[in-house]
Amino acid sequence: MAKLYFRYSAMNAGKSTALIQVAHNYEENGRRVALYTAAIDHRFGVGMIASRIGPRREAKTFDAALDFFDEMSKMRDIACVLIDEAQFLSPEQVRELHRGAHLLNVPVICYGIRTDFLGEPFPGSIYLLGLADSVEELKNICSCGRKATMNPRFDSAGKRIRTGEQVAIEGDVEYRPMCARCFYGGDA
Amino acid sequence: MAKLYFRYSAMNAGKSTALIQVAHNYEENGRRVALYTAAIDHRFGVGMIASRIGPRREAKTFDAALDFFDEMSKMRDIACVLIDEAQFLSPEQVRELHRGAHLLNVPVICYGIRTDFLGEPFPGSIYLLGLADSVEELKNICSCGRKATMNPRFDSAGKRIRTGEQVAIEGDVEYRPMCARCFYGGDA
Amino acid sequence: MAKLYFRYSAMNAGKSTALIQVAHNYEENGRRVALYTAAIDHRFGVGMIASRIGPRREAKTFDAALDFFDEMSKMRDIACVLIDEAQFLSPEQVRELHRGAHLLNVPVICYGIRTDFLGEPFPGSIYLLGLADSVEELKNICSCGRKATMNPRFDSAGKRIRTGEQVAIEGDVEYRPMCARCFYGGDA
Amino acid sequence: MAKLYFRYSAMNAGKSTALIQVAHNYEENGRRVALYTAAIDHRFGVGMIASRIGPRREAKTFDAALDFFDEMSKMRDIACVLIDEAQFLSPEQVRELHRGAHLLNVPVICYGIRTDFLGEPFPGSIYLLGLADSVEELKNICSCGRKATMNPRFDSAGKRIRTGEQVAIEGDVEYRPMCARCFYGGDA
Repeated sequence: MAKLYFRYSAMNAGKSTALIQVAHNYEENGRRVALYTAAIDHRFGVGMIASRIGPRREAKTFDAALDFFDEMSKMRDIACVLIDEAQFLSPEQVRELHRGAHLLNVPVICYGIRTDFLGEPFPGSIYLLGLADSVEELKNICSCGRKATMNPRFDSAGKRIRTGEQVAIEGDVEYRPMCARCFYGGDA
Repeated sequence: MAKLYFRYSAMNAGKSTALIQVAHNYEENGRRVALYTAAIDHRFGVGMIASRIGPRREAKTFDAALDFFDEMSKMRDIACVLIDEAQFLSPEQVRELHRGAHLLNVPVICYGIRTDFLGEPFPGSIYLLGLADSVEELKNICSCGRKATMNPRFDSAGKRIRTGEQVAIEGDVEYRPMCARCFYGGDA
Repeated sequence: MAKLYFRYSAMNAGKSTALIQVAHNYEENGRRVALYTAAIDHRFGVGMIASRIGPRREAKTFDAALDFFDEMSKMRDIACVLIDEAQFLSPEQVRELHRGAHLLNVPVICYGIRTDFLGEPFPGSIYLLGLADSVEELKNICSCGRKATMNPRFDSAGKRIRTGEQVAIEGDVEYRPMCARCFYGGDA
Repeated sequence: MAKLYFRYSAMNAGKSTALIQVAHNYEENGRRVALYTAAIDHRFGVGMIASRIGPRREAKTFDAALDFFDEMSKMRDIACVLIDEAQFLSPEQVRELHRGAHLLNVPVICYGIRTDFLGEPFPGSIYLLGLADSVEELKNICSCGRKATMNPRFDSAGKRIRTGEQVAIEGDVEYRPMCARCFYGGDA
């Protein structure tokens, strides 16, 4: 009966906050959850899920070597698997989580963004969007006031960057939630 | 173009957290928001919106005397109106907020529960569910693992209460998120 | 595991079409469904669900005297209960359907509008919106191009009617899908 | 203000029915729409959108050579672009439609399936799921009664096919809507 959920948004919508809230809801019900985030994302320290409104939680980390079906097979008394930065999952890992939810009957809730700074889908997000039993959006706004769906990259001087690698963790660069009209048309 | 949103859930799903996150998202974009909560709900102090995972925000309070259309007409530079405990709005106030969103072009996002401890809809929720341009659910789980949709009342000894007034703020009583099967069938 | 679904829309969005499609999907899978529509709605003949794009299906009719929990208790081999014009259900009937879905484990899918020509919620819709496990919108557009959420009444000369009974079946009057801005602001 | 919509489902959920209904809704409002379907899909004749419950509509066809942004730039008085079998769009065409919706201000509604008979996402669906402003599911059921999300292929004898090309139009083969548990675990 368990399902695979993908809750996506543009940057800075509150995905980590939502994940921490769901973990809290399970635990308040006397249930245990397993939290994961991408090893590659070390903005707040390795293995740390941090909400911009304050709360933080430690989490296991995943990289491409982790077999999530194997991981889920060994879990005891875990009521829900929660994964942050899920765009960094490999296609194979999404498949493992999908099989895990349906064959091992443990719900899996993944949070992530859909596309990179050029509007190209992340490999993990492609499979999450394609396979998830429930695809839900967390909303954020563009600076123009419309719903943001895109994630353009900017340098430290606030200049938009239009070439580069798909993955560049915030630090020297930053990302801003933006609507498609500003993304395509804007000079920002 | 602005809309009236109703984001509902059973008890303890994270409505206040979600509201505080949305306020943060607007403010991070350099925009101002107006926050309201019910004067009747003084669990965390009058005019305090408190997330169970930590964050808190001060808010204006509303009671039945407040005319929200008039209130919205006087706002300057407010990008969004956010209302917690929206089940306590009067039908007339929901109408004011609906007209305000559409005629004054300011989005209004209301968070609340749908039904009371007997499964009877709250007056404010009736009109929010009937008029909102967008009706969205924040999910929580029943202790049995299914999605919670109901809000039964319990006394301090954990015994279910099946008679009483529609409004009894937590303190001597408590509410638990529960699925409909447990709500109708359970002896809890 | 079964749930109560409410799929609402403004007038003429395609609710009957959607209902007939779902019935077809179940039957194509070798399963039987039970169809109901309101006895009061005789626009296409009593007990007829008619899509504006063509397809029609016969259905049982309900009036306030029908006990749906009793009705569902006697069903054999029914995989789904489908109800059109569900705004005409009584609150008690919605409760029966809610209990039926959860205690008898038969999914119930209701289609209806939310509010009347004055923007007042229908009694059946109040309870469907308050209790349904899944609340989903079928979209339609206002003549201005925005999403329609309201159902204003017009006379045969096209003049808007602003007083009268909540229920007046189309014939001498007609209803048009309209957005809230046109509903409140328009002279239509 | 216009948006790109992707309404996906497993096979046989009623996508073509829904598309024909939306076209009807616009036309009933005195507005014109542009309909497209994949040239490759000739099950009902080239350029024919056919609902399994009856209604049919002629449509223009697309293949990989069509430039949709150019196509949309030349449209006059088209209130909405409706595309069936949208999984067969190329990534570039989805980008054109996304830009068209946002820069030319014409809503684009695409209907399609997400994954092929092996659970691999279609190229067009990858970009629709990644870029659409609104991602919505039309539901169908598995023969086991759960929600179907997968599209396994069967031969004319009803035997499941597990190897082959991504695209094989129905005729010698058929597709069945299936839940993930049956998809991974079933011997069907």
